[in-house]
Amino acid sequence: MSVDEVVLLDAWGSMFGMRARIALEEKGVKYEHKEENLSNKSPLLLQMNPIYKQIPVLIHNGKPISESAIIVQYIDEVWNHNTPILPSHPYERAQARFWVDYIDKKVYPTWNKMWRSEGEDHEAAKKELISIFKQLEETLGDKIFYGGDTFGFVDVGLITFYCWFYTFETYGNFKMEAECPKLIAWAKRCMQRETVSKIIPDEKEVYNAVVEMKKELESK
Amino acid sequence: MSVDEVVLLDAWGSMFGMRARIALEEKGVKYEHKEENLSNKSPLLLQMNPIYKQIPVLIHNGKPISESAIIVQYIDEVWNHNTPILPSHPYERAQARFWVDYIDKKVYPTWNKMWRSEGEDHEAAKKELISIFKQLEETLGDKIFYGGDTFGFVDVGLITFYCWFYTFETYGNFKMEAECPKLIAWAKRCMQRETVSKIIPDEKEVYNAVVEMKKELESK
Repeated sequence: MSVDEVVLLDAWGSMFGMRARIALEEKGVKYEHKEENLSNKSPLLLQMNPIYKQIPVLIHNGKPISESAIIVQYIDEVWNHNTPILPSHPYERAQARFWVDYIDKKVYPTWNKMWRSEGEDHEAAKKELISIFKQLEETLGDKIFYGGDTFGFVDVGLITFYCWFYTFETYGNFKMEAECPKLIAWAKRCMQRETVSKIIPDEKEVYNAVVEMKKELESK
Repeated sequence: MSVDEVVLLDAWGSMFGMRARIALEEKGVKYEHKEENLSNKSPLLLQMNPIYKQIPVLIHNGKPISESAIIVQYIDEVWNHNTPILPSHPYERAQARFWVDYIDKKVYPTWNKMWRSEGEDHEAAKKELISIFKQLEETLGDKIFYGGDTFGFVDVGLITFYCWFYTFETYGNFKMEAECPKLIAWAKRCMQRETVSKIIPDEKEVYNAVVEMKKELESK
């Protein structure tokens, strides 16, 4: 077997970059982690993702893959000898894809709306964000992980937002534990996996970084 | 082998519903086609897609699958004995998923922006729509189909917009043939497949339906 060259272009705190990293850890793949400065993107990033110019980009033996949900599926298909991430049954695969797509369409855009607005718009976005998490809690139900007993695609897709919960709560003035206790219990179960806990940063560090980012944006 | 019960909830002219239909035709799957009235959705649709309440929904032996790109992948995985839709190599699969995701993120939303705006906003959206198609033409390059020599996932994802081109052109006052001649040649190649031509409606009929829809919206 030839040695794979695996590089991840990422940025600190990105829930999308963390998805790729957790998937690589789950598979035990060694990779080089390159942090991008998003206000001064590297020529490599612009060359590897000319369409969106965004992280994460996985570069496998020189060939780039973009979009985190697509990257995770790619990792699952290439390193398919152990720890499957997607379920094996087509119907369960479709359901897992549906929920990761739901997370992509809903969580970050709604947080972004809440973060950038004030007054009524802020309140509406906050209400929407809470209702999204309540939906995700309902979808989990009484299962241990989203796919059942084993950690899988939807878990990878959602757990990377966990370190952002404190930031969501603080900007939104609500408590995730009070709104979605089962989701918090699920997140704590995920955090018991070393592949997750070694990747997810401290929630206060995320919050401080977001405060700094907001200051910077407002000073422009 | 037990007999599969396959139902597709759809609406006339939907580029997303047509993707599911072409995939089913490619696989030779018999299905019941149920047309929804989107201004008076059926209880079945609301029950089968409670999250988005949108067509298309594929109901396979009573179990619903939503979101057209996910439906097409499901069809490819379940009826996997012939005519593969996604490529077999993980890297090519990732690329195909990337481009279908690009089409989903860009084409309809930009058309919608153009359709609903006037003046400068309309012009900006028109310019953006043309640049999206130029990008898609560049991605095709000199290949016969997006995946190479055989009709596949990106072809299914994009060809269903073909019958909307006349509507895009008429509302945008441009000519696709002049802007993207290679894309038009590709579309004509796709239309030579019976699985495609039997599903794609006449472009003038699509245009007339859109004109009616706009009148209805404006009278409200």
